[in-house]
Amino acid sequence: MTKPIEVRNPRTGKYDYVIIPPPPKLLAQQCNRARRAQVRWQKLGVEGRVAALKEWKQAILAGREKLTDALVNDTGRLSISVMEIDSFLSSIDRWCGLAPDLLQDSAKNTSIPFIALQQTSTPYPVVGVISPWNFPLLLSTIDTIPALLAGCAVVVKPSEIAPRFIAPLIAAINQVPALRDVFSFVEGAGETGAALIENVDLVCFTGSVATGRKVAEVAAQRFIPAFLELGGKDPAIVLESADLELATSAILWGSVVNTGQSCLSIERIYVAESIFEKFYHQLVAKAHRLQLAHPAIESGEIGPIIAERQAGIINEHLADAVQKGAVIHCGGKVEELGGGWWCHPTVLTHVNHTMKVMTEETFGPLMPIMPFTTVEEAVNLANDSIYGLSAAVFAETETEALTVAQQIDAGAISINDAALTAIMHEGEKNAFKLSGLGGSRMGAAAIKRFLRKKAFLIKTNSNQDPWWFEPKV
Amino acid sequence: MTKPIEVRNPRTGKYDYVIIPPPPKLLAQQCNRARRAQVRWQKLGVEGRVAALKEWKQAILAGREKLTDALVNDTGRLSISVMEIDSFLSSIDRWCGLAPDLLQDSAKNTSIPFIALQQTSTPYPVVGVISPWNFPLLLSTIDTIPALLAGCAVVVKPSEIAPRFIAPLIAAINQVPALRDVFSFVEGAGETGAALIENVDLVCFTGSVATGRKVAEVAAQRFIPAFLELGGKDPAIVLESADLELATSAILWGSVVNTGQSCLSIERIYVAESIFEKFYHQLVAKAHRLQLAHPAIESGEIGPIIAERQAGIINEHLADAVQKGAVIHCGGKVEELGGGWWCHPTVLTHVNHTMKVMTEETFGPLMPIMPFTTVEEAVNLANDSIYGLSAAVFAETETEALTVAQQIDAGAISINDAALTAIMHEGEKNAFKLSGLGGSRMGAAAIKRFLRKKAFLIKTNSNQDPWWFEPKV
Repeated sequence: MTKPIEVRNPRTGKYDYVIIPPPPKLLAQQCNRARRAQVRWQKLGVEGRVAALKEWKQAILAGREKLTDALVNDTGRLSISVMEIDSFLSSIDRWCGLAPDLLQDSAKNTSIPFIALQQTSTPYPVVGVISPWNFPLLLSTIDTIPALLAGCAVVVKPSEIAPRFIAPLIAAINQVPALRDVFSFVEGAGETGAALIENVDLVCFTGSVATGRKVAEVAAQRFIPAFLELGGKDPAIVLESADLELATSAILWGSVVNTGQSCLSIERIYVAESIFEKFYHQLVAKAHRLQLAHPAIESGEIGPIIAERQAGIINEHLADAVQKGAVIHCGGKVEELGGGWWCHPTVLTHVNHTMKVMTEETFGPLMPIMPFTTVEEAVNLANDSIYGLSAAVFAETETEALTVAQQIDAGAISINDAALTAIMHEGEKNAFKLSGLGGSRMGAAAIKRFLRKKAFLIKTNSNQDPWWFEPKV
Repeated sequence: MTKPIEVRNPRTGKYDYVIIPPPPKLLAQQCNRARRAQVRWQKLGVEGRVAALKEWKQAILAGREKLTDALVNDTGRLSISVMEIDSFLSSIDRWCGLAPDLLQDSAKNTSIPFIALQQTSTPYPVVGVISPWNFPLLLSTIDTIPALLAGCAVVVKPSEIAPRFIAPLIAAINQVPALRDVFSFVEGAGETGAALIENVDLVCFTGSVATGRKVAEVAAQRFIPAFLELGGKDPAIVLESADLELATSAILWGSVVNTGQSCLSIERIYVAESIFEKFYHQLVAKAHRLQLAHPAIESGEIGPIIAERQAGIINEHLADAVQKGAVIHCGGKVEELGGGWWCHPTVLTHVNHTMKVMTEETFGPLMPIMPFTTVEEAVNLANDSIYGLSAAVFAETETEALTVAQQIDAGAISINDAALTAIMHEGEKNAFKLSGLGGSRMGAAAIKRFLRKKAFLIKTNSNQDPWWFEPKV
């Protein structure tokens, strides 16, 4: 028997939901069922798979309220949950539109004397997706949808911290016969994730560096591809010429949206010394205007901290910074309200790279700001990190900003805005340093990760022995 | 101090060469030098890098005799060494011709309302290449040349069993100032390979499954991409309709060329029962005609076994097969001649999948043949393997052969010939099962493995806040 896991509600602090991880044998059976069903799913062709996903979307729409309720209970926030569902639904449409073209083999058939080449692609049979709690719906489906369209079966293990949203998704799957067996979820924590990797042919993981490293090692032992999207400590650089009004609004948004619980949230801000004071005053003023979504969930902009252990990390980073001389201008503490953990947007100055708040992922609404005197210094500070996920640069002109952006070791860099990868899906990017491994999950490349290339090399003239035991010297 | 390694000569059995692995600190310095020099190499642009590699080729040609001598001493075989050098030289030309086009960014710049996308690619700074002893020159440069052209610095560690060939390559590098520091070799065994992985940003490994697994695990811990080309147990399927003359010649060649010391050599042969007897008689007759290249290196077709430990493995597979009931029709033993280890082409029947000779990589000139009654059985036998590198199918028509080939779990399948991937480089392929991991080393995709994508997302209308703290629900 496996032990049930009680799930905490981030607004009330009460454990009001239970998941039961399957015994390893049952999980293996689920993956085997997926493996058998995948043959039929692949044969269905991309048009058939598009039709099945569209049916699934209709079934979700019919039960949309239940999905919203579940996601709100998982995350404790309302407006972001609604946006998350919208974004998820439109990602189904987007991929269904793109997949038929993208799945045409791009590698060319060709020939040389006596040999003709035919290329085909074939999907990895079973893909495992292990996803985190910060955007439970989006991040459990971002790899799942293209993988399904590519012809893979997919088994998803969402985080045990926010697993309620899967029930309405499963109900919708059950209304689409073609999807049954090739698309399923499994409830559980790390142990279940580890067991899942043992049963799949490719794994997509979104989460922490520590767990990502374990995933990558197990995948390596089994010689299966691992696509990892891990932590970040995204820097923003604000050059002297930047539009301060725009920069402060965008950086505030990029830092505190979803209470900073986003891998691509801005976690370090470097501002040209000449505008430093103006910048942080303006940022503090704007941060002050934001309110907690408490007690009414419809109020304010800042939701609760979803994972209880994250509240401890935010507190630790704050204490470490203050102890080392940082000055807090607003916010500055994690507080308990009605059983949940909350943190006001917090602006810090007098920070430096000896502090955790400048070097480790905080995943909270903290905005530590450091001045720089030269562009070179700004770039060095931005690159002085174990992470390299994304970044932002603000300047008057694109050209000035791009010159700086090109020097930053990160996969995606927003110019005069923050976190634009979250709304523009076309940009192919690779994670740098410890922020991840494997091909781009954005752009056309994303769906190609789920295909293996096969080459058929055909001898076209049997009267010709082009090389068998040819000339001696 | 590190211990010198004595190197055995495969023809004489004498230890007539010595390599000295660098202390870890020196190797780290070499990689750091490469990292610093890479900046300049990348700035040189692809045209400049093409020019440098062409210069290198000229320098090699000028000292070609020394390279041939070294490679012959490494491997004990002459005509294959000459072919290997030719193939290596033409791979420089091929990549120099292809690289400028392939390095144009294929991901498209695009835009959506308020956001413009610019894509760039940037090379991994330092690539480590760890290569085996069977085709020492070709397999140490197959990834190196595209990596260099992509703009990476490359440090190569060839096998300690066949390291003589690098001296003439290094001499040629020293004649090309632009290549110095960005392209270097390091001598050593497994320990040095492991140390190399700690100092690079991407690793290409060709070799055994056991070592490949270690490479992949260390790479995973460091979050660097690992491209692995490992073992194979390539099957050939000969359908009833096949041209026997062609099939026996091609399979013989594919099995015993380079004394079977090739990852893509045919190691299992499945023949339709109705033609089984005819097939093996013909194969045995042709195998009989092949001679050992002994005592004169210019004579015969079959060179010595390069790695002494491989002689033991071949003997073990033969003994295991015979003990379990296999019948040997020609060859059948590893013998010592003048200090080297040799093995005549060996045809076996009455074999089955309980025998090592049908399940483990032999890397010798053994041709075990099994009859099948149905095509389904043939496919199942071919797929009953932990490997999935490549395969071959023989039939009267392409269509018949392709129908079978499509069912085989392997990356490259030759139709009516063997090992065609060795001469046609355009076919993109992925290894299946334990035969490897990572993108294709063939085709246009090969050079793309060495580039990371960066996406620049530019907010194009600063008067528009498309999403910052937008609609509450």
